[in-house]
Amino acid sequence: MSRPSPLSRDEFALFRALQTRWADNDLYGHMNNVVHYALFDTAINGWLIEEGLLRLGGGDTIGLVVETGCSYFSEIGFPDKVAAGIRIGHLGNTSVRYEIALFRNDEERAAAQGHFVHVYVDAATRKPRQLPGEWRRVLEDYLR
Amino acid sequence: MSRPSPLSRDEFALFRALQTRWADNDLYGHMNNVVHYALFDTAINGWLIEEGLLRLGGGDTIGLVVETGCSYFSEIGFPDKVAAGIRIGHLGNTSVRYEIALFRNDEERAAAQGHFVHVYVDAATRKPRQLPGEWRRVLEDYLR
Amino acid sequence: MSRPSPLSRDEFALFRALQTRWADNDLYGHMNNVVHYALFDTAINGWLIEEGLLRLGGGDTIGLVVETGCSYFSEIGFPDKVAAGIRIGHLGNTSVRYEIALFRNDEERAAAQGHFVHVYVDAATRKPRQLPGEWRRVLEDYLR
Amino acid sequence: MSRPSPLSRDEFALFRALQTRWADNDLYGHMNNVVHYALFDTAINGWLIEEGLLRLGGGDTIGLVVETGCSYFSEIGFPDKVAAGIRIGHLGNTSVRYEIALFRNDEERAAAQGHFVHVYVDAATRKPRQLPGEWRRVLEDYLR
Repeated sequence: MSRPSPLSRDEFALFRALQTRWADNDLYGHMNNVVHYALFDTAINGWLIEEGLLRLGGGDTIGLVVETGCSYFSEIGFPDKVAAGIRIGHLGNTSVRYEIALFRNDEERAAAQGHFVHVYVDAATRKPRQLPGEWRRVLEDYLR
Repeated sequence: MSRPSPLSRDEFALFRALQTRWADNDLYGHMNNVVHYALFDTAINGWLIEEGLLRLGGGDTIGLVVETGCSYFSEIGFPDKVAAGIRIGHLGNTSVRYEIALFRNDEERAAAQGHFVHVYVDAATRKPRQLPGEWRRVLEDYLR
Repeated sequence: MSRPSPLSRDEFALFRALQTRWADNDLYGHMNNVVHYALFDTAINGWLIEEGLLRLGGGDTIGLVVETGCSYFSEIGFPDKVAAGIRIGHLGNTSVRYEIALFRNDEERAAAQGHFVHVYVDAATRKPRQLPGEWRRVLEDYLR
Repeated sequence: MSRPSPLSRDEFALFRALQTRWADNDLYGHMNNVVHYALFDTAINGWLIEEGLLRLGGGDTIGLVVETGCSYFSEIGFPDKVAAGIRIGHLGNTSVRYEIALFRNDEERAAAQGHFVHVYVDAATRKPRQLPGEWRRVLEDYLR
């Protein structure tokens, strides 16, 4: 099993500041592995909403998650602050691969990094649809 | 059933800035009622840690929650920001009643408010113990 | 601060079997106080769905939570099993007070007990509406 | 991006029955992608506890998660029941790859499937340690 190496901050141009919560810590005293994915979702969707791309309750395009993954290098835990670095790993016709690294407090190397793949679908029919041009124009700026 | 009225910001002297998460929203499109309590915990414990009172994994006094409650007035939901106002409702020999109001974005009136009661116990024996003097000195400044 | 006493199983006629999860345990090694409310929601809504009263995504009446509360008597934690006893504390014109007690494994006395108050509203307008007759007929059987 | 195919129940010899919760559903009306990992953790750790291998708060060996991943094929949502199929994908000297598939209600094909990799460490020093013989004897029965 080959292991990826932790990415550094200079491999990302876009960051989101995230908080940890008391309940994130499990009985080993650090953030449960599940919480990393809640932070991924929050970082990506918060960004997409601010860019005007994702519209809660109103848009006709939604992203369905078809694959996620995460590698864990070192511990994060409440009350740490987290910086989430975001980049686009792949920009397909109907899908996007988002890559996210979580940096603990001021650390330069990622404590964890992962990805998730969205397939964009029509909100009503749930059929895949071509990624709208406005999405492509924003996302391609962060394509690595 | 009598209902409390939403408190306003000027009834609090201490605030904590909190984030919402994507997964906080339930299928009605706003923050699930359970999440309010996760925010209460995070606001109070984050403050107690910064004050040097609560020490994760190391302190000999921990607070066990014996009662919680919340009244909900209006909706909060991701990606809203939340300001949590904190005050001390009661400062007993071995227990503290924390009162918390959650303000959505820049709103002046609480979207929800609640309380929780901690009984302070010896970390090892779980027997109630008198609230240490250093705790009392910090908390009494916020007694309403 | 007066404290309620733990209820016993014979004060309930309706029970739901619930599971705990690994992530429910916090760093003190037992179920975080927030999780009790997630169990309340799951017990009540699971029951209402099975009775055909609550229809996800389709019904015209939804219950908005306006008040919740919980008293904690003893610890529950993964991998415990939980039995949730349910009864109706109050059946109003547009609101219902549900009372729930959580029993750990085979224990006779509640480890925690609480309530939540639903106001029933029109799914589209969010205006309170009279509790439908079919709801009333089911719920009044469990009125204490 | 190649996509795995959903596994069927006959590719697993060990199953755990799991519940969904009300709060698992996000605003698209189905289980949020994060929750799948909470179910993975619960299935695996619940099994390891029942086998007497994992001892909460007492054992000298704990499993640290170093990698997780999940592919999503179809929707699951509260109040669905879930059967988690478990098998061992790899049994190393100090690490184990657990593979889990989540089957919705009575469906034969997985709605989602994933894995996580535990590295076993000394609870005190957090240094990797050889997987104890009692673990190996149980786990190798489920090696695919």
